[in-house]
Amino acid sequence: MTSGRGRFVVLEGGDGVGKTTQLPRLVTALEARGHVVRAIREPGGTPAGDAIRALLLDPASSLVPAAELLLFLAARAQVVADVVRPALARGEWVVADRFFVSTYAYQAAGHGLDLSQVRVATALATGGLVPDLTLVLRLGAAAAAARRARRGAADRMERHGSAFAARVAAAYDAALDAGWQARHPECGPIVGVDADGAPDVVTARLLEALGERPAPSATLT
Amino acid sequence: MTSGRGRFVVLEGGDGVGKTTQLPRLVTALEARGHVVRAIREPGGTPAGDAIRALLLDPASSLVPAAELLLFLAARAQVVADVVRPALARGEWVVADRFFVSTYAYQAAGHGLDLSQVRVATALATGGLVPDLTLVLRLGAAAAAARRARRGAADRMERHGSAFAARVAAAYDAALDAGWQARHPECGPIVGVDADGAPDVVTARLLEALGERPAPSATLT
Repeated sequence: MTSGRGRFVVLEGGDGVGKTTQLPRLVTALEARGHVVRAIREPGGTPAGDAIRALLLDPASSLVPAAELLLFLAARAQVVADVVRPALARGEWVVADRFFVSTYAYQAAGHGLDLSQVRVATALATGGLVPDLTLVLRLGAAAAAARRARRGAADRMERHGSAFAARVAAAYDAALDAGWQARHPECGPIVGVDADGAPDVVTARLLEALGERPAPSATLT
Repeated sequence: MTSGRGRFVVLEGGDGVGKTTQLPRLVTALEARGHVVRAIREPGGTPAGDAIRALLLDPASSLVPAAELLLFLAARAQVVADVVRPALARGEWVVADRFFVSTYAYQAAGHGLDLSQVRVATALATGGLVPDLTLVLRLGAAAAAARRARRGAADRMERHGSAFAARVAAAYDAALDAGWQARHPECGPIVGVDADGAPDVVTARLLEALGERPAPSATLT
Protein backbone atom coordinates (compact mmCIF):
# COMPACT_ATOMS: atom_id res chain seq x y z
CA MET A 1 0.00 0.00 0.00
CA THR A 2 1.31 3.43 -0.83
CA SER A 3 0.22 6.72 0.64
CA GLY A 4 -3.07 8.48 -0.01
CA ARG A 5 -2.76 12.04 -1.24
CA GLY A 6 0.37 12.73 0.79
CA ARG A 7 3.90 11.74 -0.11
CA PHE A 8 6.26 9.59 1.91
CA VAL A 9 9.91 10.42 1.28
CA VAL A 10 12.90 8.78 2.96
CA LEU A 11 16.34 10.32 3.32
CA GLU A 12 18.95 7.59 3.54
CA GLY A 13 22.69 7.07 3.66
CA GLY A 14 25.48 5.90 5.94
CA ASP A 15 26.77 7.84 8.94
CA GLY A 16 28.43 11.10 7.99
CA VAL A 17 26.83 11.68 4.59
CA GLY A 18 24.93 14.74 5.81
CA LYS A 19 21.40 13.53 6.55
CA THR A 20 21.23 15.55 9.77
CA THR A 21 22.15 18.70 7.87
CA GLN A 22 19.92 18.02 4.90
CA LEU A 23 16.73 16.85 6.58
CA PRO A 24 15.71 20.24 8.09
CA ARG A 25 16.84 22.04 4.95
CA LEU A 26 14.70 19.75 2.82
CA VAL A 27 11.70 20.22 5.12
CA THR A 28 12.04 24.00 4.99
CA ALA A 29 12.37 23.95 1.21
CA LEU A 30 9.29 21.75 0.82
CA GLU A 31 7.29 23.96 3.17
CA ALA A 32 8.36 27.01 1.15
CA ARG A 33 6.79 25.24 -1.85
CA GLY A 34 3.44 24.94 -0.10
CA HIS A 35 3.60 21.44 1.33
CA VAL A 36 2.69 20.53 4.89
CA VAL A 37 5.64 18.40 6.01
CA ARG A 38 6.19 16.09 8.95
CA ALA A 39 9.77 15.03 9.61
CA ILE A 40 10.43 11.81 11.53
CA ARG A 41 13.70 10.49 12.79
CA GLU A 42 13.63 6.90 13.96
CA PRO A 43 13.45 5.60 16.58
CA GLY A 44 11.96 8.82 17.98
CA GLY A 45 8.77 10.62 17.09
CA THR A 46 6.42 9.04 19.64
CA PRO A 47 6.67 8.77 23.45
CA ALA A 48 7.46 5.06 23.11
CA GLY A 49 9.97 5.78 20.37
CA ASP A 50 11.78 8.35 22.46
CA ALA A 51 12.10 5.81 25.29
CA ILE A 52 13.38 3.25 22.80
CA ARG A 53 15.91 5.73 21.41
CA ALA A 54 17.35 6.26 24.89
CA LEU A 55 17.68 2.51 25.33
CA LEU A 56 19.32 2.02 21.91
CA LEU A 57 21.86 4.79 22.41
CA ASP A 58 22.85 3.73 25.95
CA PRO A 59 26.20 1.90 25.68
CA ALA A 60 25.43 0.19 29.01
CA SER A 61 22.51 -1.74 27.54
CA SER A 62 24.82 -4.01 25.44
CA LEU A 63 22.06 -5.10 23.11
CA VAL A 64 22.42 -8.14 20.90
CA PRO A 65 21.74 -7.39 17.19
CA ALA A 66 18.31 -9.04 17.18
CA ALA A 67 17.18 -7.00 20.19
CA GLU A 68 18.47 -3.82 18.57
CA LEU A 69 16.57 -4.58 15.35
CA LEU A 70 13.35 -5.43 17.18
CA LEU A 71 13.53 -2.21 19.22
CA PHE A 72 13.96 -0.17 16.03
CA LEU A 73 11.00 -1.99 14.48
CA ALA A 74 8.82 -1.48 17.57
CA ALA A 75 9.47 2.25 17.32
CA ARG A 76 8.75 2.08 13.59
CA ALA A 77 5.42 0.32 14.12
CA GLN A 78 4.36 3.02 16.55
CA VAL A 79 5.45 6.01 14.46
CA VAL A 80 3.89 4.56 11.30
CA ALA A 81 0.55 4.11 13.09
CA ASP A 82 0.56 7.35 15.10
CA VAL A 83 2.31 9.80 12.78
CA VAL A 84 3.03 8.61 9.24
CA ARG A 85 -0.30 7.13 8.16
CA PRO A 86 -2.44 9.93 9.70
CA ALA A 87 -0.25 12.59 8.06
CA LEU A 88 -0.39 10.90 4.64
CA ALA A 89 -4.16 10.55 4.98
CA ARG A 90 -4.38 14.31 5.58
CA GLY A 91 -2.44 14.88 2.35
CA GLU A 92 0.77 15.91 4.09
CA TRP A 93 4.31 14.98 3.23
CA VAL A 94 6.34 12.82 5.57
CA VAL A 95 10.12 12.95 5.35
CA ALA A 96 11.87 10.17 7.27
CA ASP A 97 15.49 10.13 8.39
CA ARG A 98 16.19 6.47 7.49
CA PHE A 99 13.73 3.61 6.95
CA PHE A 100 13.90 0.21 5.20
CA VAL A 101 17.28 0.58 3.53
CA SER A 102 19.01 1.45 6.80
CA THR A 103 17.44 -1.55 8.47
CA TYR A 104 18.61 -3.88 5.72
CA ALA A 105 22.06 -2.26 5.58
CA TYR A 106 22.84 -2.07 9.30
CA GLN A 107 20.92 -4.96 10.83
CA ALA A 108 21.13 -7.55 8.03
CA ALA A 109 24.25 -6.72 6.00
CA GLY A 110 26.12 -5.13 8.92
CA HIS A 111 25.19 -7.36 11.86
CA GLY A 112 24.55 -10.51 9.83
CA LEU A 113 20.90 -11.03 10.75
CA ASP A 114 18.99 -13.14 8.23
CA LEU A 115 17.59 -10.76 5.60
CA SER A 116 14.46 -12.81 4.91
CA GLN A 117 13.58 -12.75 8.63
CA VAL A 118 14.38 -9.04 8.83
CA ARG A 119 12.06 -8.35 5.88
CA VAL A 120 9.16 -10.23 7.48
CA ALA A 121 9.64 -8.50 10.83
CA THR A 122 9.82 -5.16 9.04
CA ALA A 123 6.61 -5.87 7.13
CA LEU A 124 4.94 -6.76 10.40
CA ALA A 125 6.01 -3.38 11.80
CA THR A 126 4.92 -1.25 8.86
CA GLY A 127 1.83 -3.13 7.70
CA GLY A 128 2.85 -2.81 4.06
CA LEU A 129 3.59 0.92 3.92
CA VAL A 130 5.77 1.65 0.86
CA PRO A 131 7.80 4.89 0.56
CA ASP A 132 7.03 6.97 -2.50
CA LEU A 133 10.72 7.72 -2.95
CA THR A 134 13.92 6.99 -1.07
CA LEU A 135 16.86 9.34 -1.61
CA VAL A 136 20.25 7.84 -0.73
CA LEU A 137 22.89 10.49 -0.01
CA ARG A 138 26.23 9.29 -1.33
CA LEU A 139 29.71 10.41 -0.36
CA GLY A 140 33.16 8.90 -0.78
CA ALA A 141 34.35 6.90 2.23
CA ALA A 142 37.14 9.36 3.11
CA ALA A 143 34.82 12.38 3.05
CA ALA A 144 32.23 10.55 5.18
CA ALA A 145 34.88 9.55 7.74
CA ALA A 146 36.08 13.14 7.96
CA ARG A 147 32.54 14.37 8.62
CA ARG A 148 32.04 11.72 11.32
CA ALA A 149 35.36 12.67 12.96
CA ARG A 150 34.28 16.30 13.18
CA ARG A 151 31.15 15.23 15.06
CA GLY A 152 33.17 13.70 17.93
CA ALA A 153 32.41 10.60 19.99
CA ALA A 154 30.89 7.61 18.23
CA ASP A 155 27.50 6.31 19.37
CA ARG A 156 26.32 2.69 19.31
CA MET A 157 25.76 2.66 15.56
CA GLU A 158 29.26 3.93 14.87
CA ARG A 159 31.37 1.63 17.03
CA HIS A 160 31.40 -1.47 14.85
CA GLY A 161 34.59 -0.99 12.89
CA SER A 162 35.63 -0.82 9.26
CA ALA A 163 34.48 -4.26 8.07
CA PHE A 164 30.99 -3.51 9.39
CA ALA A 165 31.08 -0.09 7.71
CA ALA A 166 32.12 -1.70 4.41
CA ARG A 167 29.21 -4.15 4.52
CA VAL A 168 26.80 -1.31 5.24
CA ALA A 169 28.21 0.79 2.40
CA ALA A 170 27.93 -2.15 -0.01
CA ALA A 171 24.30 -2.63 0.99
CA TYR A 172 23.50 1.01 0.22
CA ASP A 173 25.17 0.63 -3.18
CA ALA A 174 23.22 -2.55 -3.90
CA ALA A 175 19.91 -0.84 -3.12
CA LEU A 176 20.46 1.55 -6.07
CA ASP A 177 20.32 -1.36 -8.51
CA ALA A 178 17.12 -1.86 -10.51
CA GLY A 179 17.24 -5.63 -10.03
CA TRP A 180 17.58 -5.25 -6.28
CA GLN A 181 14.64 -2.87 -6.20
CA ALA A 182 12.52 -5.28 -8.24
CA ARG A 183 13.26 -7.98 -5.66
CA HIS A 184 12.45 -5.64 -2.74
CA PRO A 185 9.19 -3.94 -3.78
CA GLU A 186 8.44 -3.01 -0.15
CA CYS A 187 11.16 -0.36 -0.40
CA GLY A 188 9.64 1.51 -3.34
CA PRO A 189 11.87 3.43 -5.78
CA ILE A 190 15.37 4.34 -4.56
CA VAL A 191 17.72 6.86 -6.14
CA GLY A 192 21.21 8.06 -5.25
CA VAL A 193 21.99 11.74 -4.66
CA ASP A 194 25.53 13.14 -4.66
CA ALA A 195 26.18 14.47 -1.13
CA ASP A 196 29.50 16.15 -1.98
CA GLY A 197 29.24 19.93 -2.10
CA ALA A 198 27.88 22.90 -0.20
CA PRO A 199 24.66 22.26 1.78
CA ASP A 200 22.49 24.38 -0.53
CA VAL A 201 23.83 22.55 -3.58
CA VAL A 202 22.96 19.18 -2.04
CA THR A 203 19.50 20.41 -1.02
CA ALA A 204 18.89 21.54 -4.60
CA ARG A 205 19.80 18.06 -5.83
CA LEU A 206 17.32 16.48 -3.40
CA LEU A 207 14.56 18.82 -4.59
CA GLU A 208 15.37 18.04 -8.20
CA ALA A 209 15.17 14.30 -7.47
CA LEU A 210 11.72 14.93 -5.94
CA GLY A 211 10.58 16.82 -9.03
CA GLU A 212 10.26 20.06 -7.08
CA ARG A 213 11.06 23.47 -8.50
CA PRO A 214 14.49 24.85 -7.58
CA ALA A 215 13.09 28.13 -6.20
CA PRO A 216 10.19 28.53 -3.74
CA SER A 217 6.88 29.06 -5.52
CA ALA A 218 6.17 32.00 -3.20
CA THR A 219 8.87 34.03 -4.96
CA LEU A 220 7.50 33.18 -8.40
CA THR A 221 3.88 34.23 -7.99
CA MET B 1 18.29 -26.31 18.55
CA THR B 2 17.45 -27.51 22.03
CA SER B 3 19.42 -26.91 25.20
CA GLY B 4 22.72 -28.51 26.12
CA ARG B 5 22.82 -30.33 29.44
CA GLY B 6 20.37 -27.94 31.09
CA ARG B 7 16.63 -27.97 30.74
CA PHE B 8 14.42 -25.17 29.47
CA VAL B 9 10.93 -25.28 30.97
CA VAL B 10 8.14 -22.80 30.27
CA LEU B 11 5.18 -22.13 32.55
CA GLU B 12 2.23 -20.92 30.52
CA GLY B 13 -1.43 -20.03 30.84
CA GLY B 14 -3.82 -17.10 30.66
CA ASP B 15 -4.07 -14.35 33.26
CA GLY B 16 -5.29 -15.59 36.63
CA VAL B 17 -4.37 -19.27 36.32
CA GLY B 18 -1.74 -19.01 39.05
CA LYS B 19 1.59 -18.71 37.23
CA THR B 20 2.82 -16.01 39.63
CA THR B 21 2.09 -18.29 42.59
CA GLN B 22 3.48 -21.43 41.01
CA LEU B 23 6.69 -20.14 39.44
CA PRO B 24 8.60 -19.51 42.72
CA ARG B 25 7.16 -22.69 44.23
CA LEU B 26 8.34 -24.69 41.24
CA VAL B 27 11.81 -23.12 41.38
CA THR B 28 12.12 -23.90 45.10
CA ALA B 29 10.97 -27.48 44.56
CA LEU B 30 13.45 -28.01 41.71
CA GLU B 31 16.27 -26.51 43.77
CA ALA B 32 15.36 -28.87 46.62
CA ARG B 33 15.90 -31.70 44.14
CA GLY B 34 19.43 -30.55 43.41
CA HIS B 35 18.96 -28.49 40.25
CA VAL B 36 20.44 -25.06 39.73
CA VAL B 37 17.48 -23.03 38.47
CA ARG B 38 17.18 -19.64 36.79
CA ALA B 39 13.70 -18.14 36.63
CA ILE B 40 12.91 -15.57 33.97
CA ARG B 41 9.81 -13.50 33.59
CA GLU B 42 9.50 -11.70 30.29
CA PRO B 43 9.97 -8.97 29.39
CA GLY B 44 12.29 -8.50 32.40
CA GLY B 45 15.48 -10.28 33.32
CA THR B 46 18.01 -7.95 31.68
CA PRO B 47 18.54 -4.17 32.06
CA ALA B 48 17.04 -3.65 28.60
CA GLY B 49 14.16 -5.97 29.40
CA ASP B 50 13.34 -4.12 32.60
CA ALA B 51 13.20 -0.85 30.65
CA ILE B 52 10.96 -2.52 28.07
CA ARG B 53 8.70 -3.89 30.79
CA ALA B 54 8.15 -0.37 32.14
CA LEU B 55 7.25 0.83 28.67
CA LEU B 56 4.84 -2.07 28.03
CA LEU B 57 3.01 -1.67 31.32
CA ASP B 58 2.63 2.12 31.06
CA PRO B 59 -0.98 2.82 29.99
CA ALA B 60 0.18 6.22 28.70
CA SER B 61 2.32 4.66 25.97
CA SER B 62 -0.75 3.50 23.95
CA LEU B 63 1.20 0.96 21.94
CA VAL B 64 -0.17 -0.52 18.74
CA PRO B 65 -0.18 -4.36 18.76
CA ALA B 66 2.81 -4.67 16.41
CA ALA B 67 4.90 -2.37 18.61
CA GLU B 68 3.90 -4.31 21.71
CA LEU B 69 4.89 -7.60 20.06
CA LEU B 70 8.22 -6.26 18.84
CA LEU B 71 9.07 -4.90 22.29
CA PHE B 72 8.34 -8.28 23.87
CA LEU B 73 10.51 -9.96 21.24
CA ALA B 74 13.35 -7.47 21.74
CA ALA B 75 13.35 -8.32 25.44
CA ARG B 76 13.22 -12.02 24.54
CA ALA B 77 16.20 -11.76 22.20
CA GLN B 78 18.23 -10.15 24.96
CA VAL B 79 17.27 -12.53 27.77
CA VAL B 80 17.83 -15.58 25.55
CA ALA B 81 21.33 -14.37 24.66
CA ASP B 82 22.35 -13.06 28.09
CA VAL B 83 20.60 -15.45 30.49
CA VAL B 84 18.93 -18.51 28.95
CA ARG B 85 21.62 -19.85 26.63
CA PRO B 86 24.50 -19.32 29.10
CA ALA B 87 22.52 -21.01 31.91
CA LEU B 88 21.62 -24.01 29.73
CA ALA B 89 25.24 -24.30 28.62
CA ARG B 90 26.26 -24.49 32.30
CA GLY B 91 23.80 -27.36 32.79
CA GLU B 92 21.29 -25.28 34.73
CA TRP B 93 17.53 -25.30 34.45
CA VAL B 94 15.71 -22.26 33.16
CA VAL B 95 12.05 -21.80 34.07
CA ALA B 96 10.30 -19.10 32.06
CA ASP B 97 7.07 -17.36 32.96
CA ARG B 98 5.53 -17.40 29.45
CA PHE B 99 7.28 -17.81 26.08
CA PHE B 100 6.13 -18.80 22.57
CA VAL B 101 2.59 -19.87 23.39
CA SER B 102 1.77 -16.57 25.11
CA THR B 103 3.11 -14.68 22.12
CA TYR B 104 0.97 -16.67 19.71
CA ALA B 105 -2.08 -16.49 22.00
CA TYR B 106 -1.98 -12.80 22.92
CA GLN B 107 -0.33 -11.13 19.94
CA ALA B 108 -1.60 -13.28 17.06
CA ALA B 109 -4.90 -14.82 18.24
CA GLY B 110 -5.76 -11.98 20.62
CA HIS B 111 -4.65 -8.90 18.72
CA GLY B 112 -5.02 -10.34 15.23
CA LEU B 113 -1.43 -10.01 14.08
CA ASP B 114 -0.51 -12.38 11.24
CA LEU B 115 0.70 -15.62 12.85
CA SER B 116 3.17 -16.45 10.08
CA GLN B 117 4.83 -13.05 10.50
CA VAL B 118 4.78 -13.42 14.29
CA ARG B 119 6.49 -16.81 14.00
CA VAL B 120 9.28 -15.44 11.82
CA ALA B 121 9.85 -12.46 14.09
CA THR B 122 9.91 -14.80 17.10
CA ALA B 123 12.44 -17.08 15.42
CA LEU B 124 14.59 -14.05 14.70
CA ALA B 125 14.48 -13.17 18.41
CA THR B 126 15.26 -16.62 19.77
CA GLY B 127 17.63 -17.94 17.13
CA GLY B 128 15.92 -21.32 17.11
CA LEU B 129 15.85 -22.03 20.85
CA VAL B 130 13.24 -24.75 21.55
CA PRO B 131 11.81 -25.28 25.06
CA ASP B 132 12.26 -28.79 26.44
CA LEU B 133 8.75 -28.69 27.89
CA THR B 134 5.95 -26.15 28.15
CA LEU B 135 3.44 -26.60 30.98
CA VAL B 136 0.11 -24.85 30.39
CA LEU B 137 -1.78 -24.19 33.62
CA ARG B 138 -5.50 -24.63 32.97
CA LEU B 139 -8.43 -23.29 34.95
CA GLY B 140 -12.11 -22.80 34.17
CA ALA B 141 -12.99 -19.31 32.95
CA ALA B 142 -15.02 -18.43 36.06
CA ALA B 143 -12.25 -19.48 38.47
CA ALA B 144 -9.65 -17.55 36.47
CA ALA B 145 -11.83 -14.41 36.45
CA ALA B 146 -12.28 -14.67 40.23
CA ARG B 147 -8.51 -14.89 40.75
CA ARG B 148 -7.94 -11.88 38.48
CA ALA B 149 -10.60 -9.89 40.36
CA ARG B 150 -8.85 -10.58 43.68
CA ARG B 151 -5.64 -9.13 42.25
CA GLY B 152 -7.22 -5.71 41.65
CA ALA B 153 -6.60 -3.26 38.80
CA ALA B 154 -6.02 -4.67 35.33
CA ASP B 155 -2.75 -3.91 33.54
CA ARG B 156 -2.29 -3.47 29.78
CA MET B 157 -2.57 -7.19 29.06
CA GLU B 158 -5.86 -7.47 30.93
CA ARG B 159 -7.85 -4.56 29.49
CA HIS B 160 -8.91 -6.02 26.15
CA GLY B 161 -12.32 -7.43 27.02
CA SER B 162 -14.05 -10.77 26.85
CA ALA B 163 -13.82 -11.45 23.10
CA PHE B 164 -10.06 -10.96 23.30
CA ALA B 165 -9.89 -13.23 26.34
CA ALA B 166 -11.89 -15.90 24.52
CA ARG B 167 -9.51 -15.85 21.54
CA VAL B 168 -6.52 -16.14 23.88
CA ALA B 169 -8.13 -19.04 25.77
CA ALA B 170 -8.90 -20.84 22.50
CA ALA B 171 -5.28 -20.43 21.42
CA TYR B 172 -4.03 -22.03 24.64
CA ASP B 173 -6.43 -24.92 24.10
CA ALA B 174 -5.29 -25.36 20.51
CA ALA B 175 -1.64 -25.55 21.58
CA LEU B 176 -2.35 -28.74 23.54
CA ASP B 177 -3.28 -30.57 20.33
CA ALA B 178 -0.73 -32.96 18.85
CA GLY B 179 -1.42 -31.76 15.33
CA TRP B 180 -0.88 -28.14 16.34
CA GLN B 181 2.40 -29.07 18.02
CA ALA B 182 3.55 -30.95 14.92
CA ARG B 183 2.91 -27.81 12.87
CA HIS B 184 4.76 -25.59 15.39
CA PRO B 185 7.94 -27.52 16.18
CA GLU B 186 9.62 -24.34 17.46
CA CYS B 187 7.43 -24.60 20.58
CA GLY B 188 8.59 -28.08 21.59
CA PRO B 189 6.26 -30.39 23.57
CA ILE B 190 3.33 -28.75 25.38
CA VAL B 191 1.19 -30.33 28.09
CA GLY B 192 -1.75 -29.08 30.12
CA VAL B 193 -1.71 -29.07 33.93
CA ASP B 194 -4.85 -28.69 36.03
CA ALA B 195 -4.49 -25.44 38.01
CA ASP B 196 -7.56 -25.97 40.20
CA GLY B 197 -6.65 -26.85 43.79
CA ALA B 198 -4.40 -25.84 46.64
CA PRO B 199 -1.01 -24.41 45.64
CA ASP B 200 0.96 -27.43 46.86
CA VAL B 201 -1.31 -29.77 44.91
CA VAL B 202 -0.74 -27.80 41.71
CA THR B 203 3.03 -27.67 42.32
CA ALA B 204 3.04 -31.45 42.74
CA ARG B 205 1.28 -31.80 39.38
CA LEU B 206 3.91 -29.61 37.71
CA LEU B 207 6.72 -31.70 39.19
CA GLU B 208 5.03 -34.88 38.06
CA ALA B 209 4.70 -33.52 34.52
CA LEU B 210 8.43 -32.78 34.62
CA GLY B 211 9.19 -36.33 35.75
CA GLU B 212 10.51 -35.13 39.10
CA ARG B 213 10.08 -37.02 42.37
CA PRO B 214 7.26 -35.76 44.59
CA ALA B 215 9.50 -35.32 47.68
CA PRO B 216 12.88 -33.55 47.78
CA SER B 217 15.77 -35.94 47.31
CA ALA B 218 17.53 -34.35 50.31
CA THR B 219 14.96 -35.92 52.63
CA LEU B 220 15.38 -39.34 51.05
CA THR B 221 19.13 -39.80 51.38
